[in-house]
Amino acid sequence: MTDVRIVGAGMTDFGVHDRPLAELFADAAVDALDDAACAPADIDAFYLGNAMSGQTDGDTHLAPTLASHLGMAGIPCTRFEDACATSSNAFSHAVRAVAAGQYDTVLVGGVERCTPATGLGTDEMTAVFASAAHRQYEQPTGLTFPGVFGLLTTRHMHEYGTTEEQLAAVAVKNHRHGTLNPRAQFGTETTVAEVLEGPVVASPFRLLDCCPFSDGAAAVVVTREDAVDDPESAPRVAGIGHATDAVPLATKADLTATQSARDAAAAAYAEADIQPADVDVAEVHDCFTGAEILAIEALGFVDTGEGGHAAVEGTTALGGEIPVNPSGGLKAKGHPIGATGVAQLVELTDQLRGEAGERQVPDARYALAHNLGGDAATTLVTVLDGGVSA
Amino acid sequence: MTDVRIVGAGMTDFGVHDRPLAELFADAAVDALDDAACAPADIDAFYLGNAMSGQTDGDTHLAPTLASHLGMAGIPCTRFEDACATSSNAFSHAVRAVAAGQYDTVLVGGVERCTPATGLGTDEMTAVFASAAHRQYEQPTGLTFPGVFGLLTTRHMHEYGTTEEQLAAVAVKNHRHGTLNPRAQFGTETTVAEVLEGPVVASPFRLLDCCPFSDGAAAVVVTREDAVDDPESAPRVAGIGHATDAVPLATKADLTATQSARDAAAAAYAEADIQPADVDVAEVHDCFTGAEILAIEALGFVDTGEGGHAAVEGTTALGGEIPVNPSGGLKAKGHPIGATGVAQLVELTDQLRGEAGERQVPDARYALAHNLGGDAATTLVTVLDGGVSA
Repeated sequence: MTDVRIVGAGMTDFGVHDRPLAELFADAAVDALDDAACAPADIDAFYLGNAMSGQTDGDTHLAPTLASHLGMAGIPCTRFEDACATSSNAFSHAVRAVAAGQYDTVLVGGVERCTPATGLGTDEMTAVFASAAHRQYEQPTGLTFPGVFGLLTTRHMHEYGTTEEQLAAVAVKNHRHGTLNPRAQFGTETTVAEVLEGPVVASPFRLLDCCPFSDGAAAVVVTREDAVDDPESAPRVAGIGHATDAVPLATKADLTATQSARDAAAAAYAEADIQPADVDVAEVHDCFTGAEILAIEALGFVDTGEGGHAAVEGTTALGGEIPVNPSGGLKAKGHPIGATGVAQLVELTDQLRGEAGERQVPDARYALAHNLGGDAATTLVTVLDGGVSA
Repeated sequence: MTDVRIVGAGMTDFGVHDRPLAELFADAAVDALDDAACAPADIDAFYLGNAMSGQTDGDTHLAPTLASHLGMAGIPCTRFEDACATSSNAFSHAVRAVAAGQYDTVLVGGVERCTPATGLGTDEMTAVFASAAHRQYEQPTGLTFPGVFGLLTTRHMHEYGTTEEQLAAVAVKNHRHGTLNPRAQFGTETTVAEVLEGPVVASPFRLLDCCPFSDGAAAVVVTREDAVDDPESAPRVAGIGHATDAVPLATKADLTATQSARDAAAAAYAEADIQPADVDVAEVHDCFTGAEILAIEALGFVDTGEGGHAAVEGTTALGGEIPVNPSGGLKAKGHPIGATGVAQLVELTDQLRGEAGERQVPDARYALAHNLGGDAATTLVTVLDGGVSA
């Protein structure tokens, strides 16, 4: 496999953006192109992650529209949708296409609008999100995503004694990290007491256990190893794993194992030829506090059942053994669905370049992104290597 | 590039299907798997084309759901959306992944529901289709897809003298072909007079110039050349081209050239190392009669400006020089958006195997599929080679 590197990265602030998707995406894409010192004419193909623009903006076939807006009409453009794992799957396909020699340089990005700026209220938007749950077996029960992850987390509490205080500690950690990220939607700290006093959204989750609705965009440029001038600023894609699990939820063999994450991680570690202990920094899919606990177990950062202790003990905080979500994660940075996977890679690119400012993890070489879609049905795990020589 | 072959093909009847997407797709997929003599466990990845299920069925993240329903939970599953070119792009990515050695055997399919069986009326469904037009520059003008292709065709009539009678001849030909296809939505012939007496939908198109709203599904299994037992029944994927054009319509350099089709065709011919004259049978994207005329010019089957004569003169009929849309095309077979690209390949697989019954094109070796998305923005062209030795 030809090695593939990230040579440019850009993203918008996450929050509320009352603008057309093409304009919102262009802000991230132009930053990524500038960062890569690429002109639009240097881009051979465009891979877009967007989960819901048909439902939120009445806007589909979005990839050629965005490419035209960026001055790169004509190239092959593809839109991916895999719920919240959408743009990491676009990234995976872009990397494989470059590795196979199909393209030299590809723009990969994600964009989504989920806030009331779309004109959709909370109830309507919740229904749009819930369209990623099983249409026949989950949606009719009223199960929305706080409920999906509430069920998984409740089972984890039952099996391993995980507590609401441990969940709250994840929120406190990620909010603290978010205060160090100028692009994060939430720039304020919270406390365990404040989390535990919040209204229940879906037991055991209270308001501050949940990520926000967000608008935003993120983009990266990937190219062939041999076309890279400055490898020090161009992390190498060392491994990618992509797996799914049975849907609906009730058919999964184990509610707390998140098997798709375990399978995707195993594949990514094998391709990167590393162990979990080699990972220096990770962005994981903390759509809810409980989801981060399940994720760090599935990724092998802590033993199964031990995830609840990690945030409390500082293991996963900046300065800890394995800093998780230095960006603030979905919880504090925000979660514009189709943009999230690539935004994780933008953060990790910053980290591996040593450009993450106050939230920098020192001397990071291996960085991991974990991006989950649907009722724990799809997971993509990506390992980046910031070491100069592969 | 490792050669890749289609070893199984299946599709449902196109028409009205009041059933969950998972059930509808399974009918096509099980037929394709049976045809390939594959068990679900033999499939390494699943590539799905679906354009609009979020809008029509409130059902997204569909790929893992369909895989679970088919008994293949766990494998990497990806959903593609590129308007009407959706599932040919899924096919392209599946073929490239097998060619690159990423997977051995992949299930590729498309499914869509567009009829009132979804609960959406004609007006609502027209708006869903129109979401693939430019959100800021086309939708606000009231431009829907009969209008988009009406504009392109009106320009072709102005430049080249194409007539309404020539458009009608395309409908008459494809309806006639459709009577020979048991899976076609329309099984009845029509006449030029009947087409010209129909109500105007968007000038110059009358009702019978337009393809119907359709529900349906199609699937193929692709695998590595060296895993194929019976190459005679397994067409080789000889070339694929994928290109886009500027959007919105008003920004295209030429309204009648359909540049994305020309670019995609050039790439596909180059990869297959053939000329247009080598093509023995083609399925082209005749969403409207005028679209077939533009397509056969862009593909090089006739000279630019000469497309209007082809159906009248029988050039593109069964028995003619280059039979186009022996299946009946979108016009008579039907057009369940995300299923159409793969359905074209199912028809061509039948043709290259000599299993197309009354609509068989004799001694066909090279078969071409042309699948277009949006306002002539995306085109995929695929060339299959039914010759046994590559």
